Amino acid sequence: MPKIVDHDERRLELVDATWRIIARLGIEGATMREIALEAGFANGALKPYFPTKDTLLTFAFRHVFNRTNERIREVTAGKAGITALRAFCVEVLPLDSERVNEARIVVPFWQKAINDPEKAAIHRESMDQWRGAIQGYLTEARRQGDVNAAVDDSVVSGHLLNMLLGAQIAAALAPGIETDLGLGDQLEAFLTLLQAGS
Amino acid sequence: MPKIVDHDERRLELVDATWRIIARLGIEGATMREIALEAGFANGALKPYFPTKDTLLTFAFRHVFNRTNERIREVTAGKAGITALRAFCVEVLPLDSERVNEARIVVPFWQKAINDPEKAAIHRESMDQWRGAIQGYLTEARRQGDVNAAVDDSVVSGHLLNMLLGAQIAAALAPGIETDLGLGDQLEAFLTLLQAGS
Repeated sequence: MPKIVDHDERRLELVDATWRIIARLGIEGATMREIALEAGFANGALKPYFPTKDTLLTFAFRHVFNRTNERIREVTAGKAGITALRAFCVEVLPLDSERVNEARIVVPFWQKAINDPEKAAIHRESMDQWRGAIQGYLTEARRQGDVNAAVDDSVVSGHLLNMLLGAQIAAALAPGIETDLGLGDQLEAFLTLLQAGS
Repeated sequence: MPKIVDHDERRLELVDATWRIIARLGIEGATMREIALEAGFANGALKPYFPTKDTLLTFAFRHVFNRTNERIREVTAGKAGITALRAFCVEVLPLDSERVNEARIVVPFWQKAINDPEKAAIHRESMDQWRGAIQGYLTEARRQGDVNAAVDDSVVSGHLLNMLLGAQIAAALAPGIETDLGLGDQLEAFLTLLQAGS
């Protein structure tokens, strides 16, 4: 019987290897050769999975997004309003080394997306999904009487989403992976402002 | 008499050419050859100004930062508190095509900075300066009675700065340079929250 190869699993192994290489050498140093070596693949064996580094980077971005969404589903289960919004943001913010490494995948993806409409569209779809989620939590928060401010929730959602994006930049460019950037405090301060006057 | 060459001016010509090329071809397509061609320099004539594309990108980043600061000085002159804070943020936000093009320089610089400690330090120094400016405006706004919220101004400054960074990503990845991203409205909503309950 032929050996059964789980192609999805192998793709994820390659994504993990890509992360380690990008964290160590940067996106430009992350050649297909280096990634193959790190993942224990023969040189050229990546091609059936990812014909180009570009396809690998797009897959890695989608994987970061999907993985974050899985974590979000777990931490927001049974929560609503401000409590759910806090849990959502804590999961998106790069507050531990795993998520700082994710930021280091996301920033190169953004850079590529500037001149690649397909990548830019993937980014925008992902962000539309998150903006919608944030807005849903705000609607619940209003219903629960926690937010009464005279602001448009879709606008506030866009503001908060941009802050979450900017936090990825701050984390990716911090002097060390464990640097405390005060992002958790920034989130709390924003939630305080949101609920002020209620 | 020998022809007097203004080297600073020629450097700025090269930065302008770099912008046009990056906007057209992306950072990877912006070879020293393409930039020289665009600026009307002979191939190789760039070397005395910028030995590498990397030095050119760093110069361009500093130039964007300095130019933004010049605009900030003009628009905040004679203003204080919330009024000055609004003027500052409007100038940093990518609200017109010139500043969207600046965002397209800044995002590739950030990507390079992830694995280049010197570039990352330049970014952090610039951001420290802006965080300090924002905090100064908030202090004035409290003194004027416009802000009374029970939040730490240095934390709120960090939050707002991250939103301004995230807005660069949103603008650089928007489908068109004239897309309305609602960034002005997001700023106003944040200023409303900041003053709520006062």
